[in-house]
Amino acid sequence: MRKTFALIFIITALASCKEKPRDSTAATTTTATTDSLPSWNDGPNKTDIINFVHTTTTPGNPGFIPEAYRIACFDNDGTLWAEQPAYFQLLYAIDRIKKIAPHHPEFAKKEPYASILKGDMKGLMTSGEKGLAAVMMATHAGITTEEFDQAVKEWLTTAKHPKTGKPFNEMTYKPMVELLQYLRANGFKTFIVSGGGIDFMRVWAESSYGIPPYQVVGSSIKTKYTVVNGKPSLVKLPELNFYDDKEGKPVGIHQHIGKRPVFTGGNSDGDFAMLQYTTTGTGYPRFGLIVHHTDSIREFAYDRNSHIGSLNKGLDSAAFYHWNIIDMAKDWKKIYSFE
Amino acid sequence: MRKTFALIFIITALASCKEKPRDSTAATTTTATTDSLPSWNDGPNKTDIINFVHTTTTPGNPGFIPEAYRIACFDNDGTLWAEQPAYFQLLYAIDRIKKIAPHHPEFAKKEPYASILKGDMKGLMTSGEKGLAAVMMATHAGITTEEFDQAVKEWLTTAKHPKTGKPFNEMTYKPMVELLQYLRANGFKTFIVSGGGIDFMRVWAESSYGIPPYQVVGSSIKTKYTVVNGKPSLVKLPELNFYDDKEGKPVGIHQHIGKRPVFTGGNSDGDFAMLQYTTTGTGYPRFGLIVHHTDSIREFAYDRNSHIGSLNKGLDSAAFYHWNIIDMAKDWKKIYSFE
Repeated sequence: MRKTFALIFIITALASCKEKPRDSTAATTTTATTDSLPSWNDGPNKTDIINFVHTTTTPGNPGFIPEAYRIACFDNDGTLWAEQPAYFQLLYAIDRIKKIAPHHPEFAKKEPYASILKGDMKGLMTSGEKGLAAVMMATHAGITTEEFDQAVKEWLTTAKHPKTGKPFNEMTYKPMVELLQYLRANGFKTFIVSGGGIDFMRVWAESSYGIPPYQVVGSSIKTKYTVVNGKPSLVKLPELNFYDDKEGKPVGIHQHIGKRPVFTGGNSDGDFAMLQYTTTGTGYPRFGLIVHHTDSIREFAYDRNSHIGSLNKGLDSAAFYHWNIIDMAKDWKKIYSFE
Repeated sequence: MRKTFALIFIITALASCKEKPRDSTAATTTTATTDSLPSWNDGPNKTDIINFVHTTTTPGNPGFIPEAYRIACFDNDGTLWAEQPAYFQLLYAIDRIKKIAPHHPEFAKKEPYASILKGDMKGLMTSGEKGLAAVMMATHAGITTEEFDQAVKEWLTTAKHPKTGKPFNEMTYKPMVELLQYLRANGFKTFIVSGGGIDFMRVWAESSYGIPPYQVVGSSIKTKYTVVNGKPSLVKLPELNFYDDKEGKPVGIHQHIGKRPVFTGGNSDGDFAMLQYTTTGTGYPRFGLIVHHTDSIREFAYDRNSHIGSLNKGLDSAAFYHWNIIDMAKDWKKIYSFE
């Protein structure tokens, strides 16, 4: 877990983030046609997606892919939902520390918990990678999987995104949810392959994306089967099980899915290996897509120099691998459902 | 991997196993009705299965289970296909050692390979747990996942079961394949949860059981993402990743599926924890099923004292947990498709 959350240093941005509702200037257009991707503007990217689906699902077409091989994988943070000003899972952890503090009097005098309780995000950051890992373990381990699910569920009903004021599970990208639905309607199986916590995502992935828990791949800590008074449960342990990022993504794909995908969507260099693994596969057409965060007004604008979702290799190699760069500002008519 | 295959000491039986086709005395009955389980004899077990499916899929019934929660898990060795006289994956490994021996001149003088090449199964056994682990790693690691798949595929076209003379992927239990189909036809998702190798099973599970690779949970060794001359692949490493047996099965279920099953089938004490985890779940009806190997003529008869598929806790606790014990000799009209 350490590495994952070490990447979250951008949390400093959190401290300075203004808690005002976002300025909703995007036009809401209703398309009266049977457009499967109504939140996408017409253009080469939308056309390429539609052509790919048409090619791969038309029997007799040389690019036809049998349904069993229509595997589509998507990163989550920054690809299916927002990831700024900090990974939402870290925001969950911070809120959780505050919530369980009454049962942990030691938090008041122990870093990094003391900083969190004082709302001192800079103090949290000075605890470094080790401190963040401690926060993750204190909030993710030592409870059963069912208790964890319940805690995340409750959080989603109360916590609000600092920029939009919306619950976090409304921070999903409408065009991407449409793309997931469009692919499924055409016989593709859609999977999440994320550096985020597998159990954290599973709580809301089915209702938000239509992706069931067994099609979610993510980072995890170990669990232990325990029977107390005849009642079995799985207890989450403070020990890393799998880190599903960078070169770990193809490993996670193989471990969970067992087939090389034909379609992959990502947004950062954490997705580079997964995109490369997908689109260098032979035998069938492949599609690689990168969500480029270009919309500072409706969402956030960042790429090469961002501490979260840093995108360098992806931009440099997109042409070589024929990956489609999605320009959020230009390609997406709508970003969130609530617009 | 060590532990998994340490259980395979029954391989000694292999050495004495006569290579004659099985004596096919079972009657083949055709049922003209719309019976979804035609290879099951009428009786309490068949009735219980049908009643469970009816109860859980009838809207308005107090036992109704929404489709998203209809998760059914099955052990593989001894539950969906035979496991005697030795786990078929070990037979694969032995055949593979012989096949790759020309590229490994050191095998001729090094144990346990030398014993395998001489057909001396007792010699292999004296190498113990360590020797078996070495054989598994020598045949499962050091190649790409695609090369491994190809090797297993080829083996299935040539290798024959020592008792029946049939290819190993025909050694599946017809009544269980019917049960899988019946459950799926009623909105259940069927998963394999086996101590066997995940990659070994995935090669044939889709064609044999209709279970796609992403619904197979099993033991695994680690893999590493490697790019050579721009061509990415996953190389299998000689290092245990996950041991999916006993208390590991609920852990594997959580890791891969993320929901507690409502239906589980097993045959040995390796399945005890998975059966217990399933049938102590609350909120919905549950079904636990144990395949009891009682048919020495058509299959093999073994339980408490067997080195493979040992069944003690399961028999002792079945009444307490309301698990259905399937008596292969009495409950199954047909065992294999080729009968």
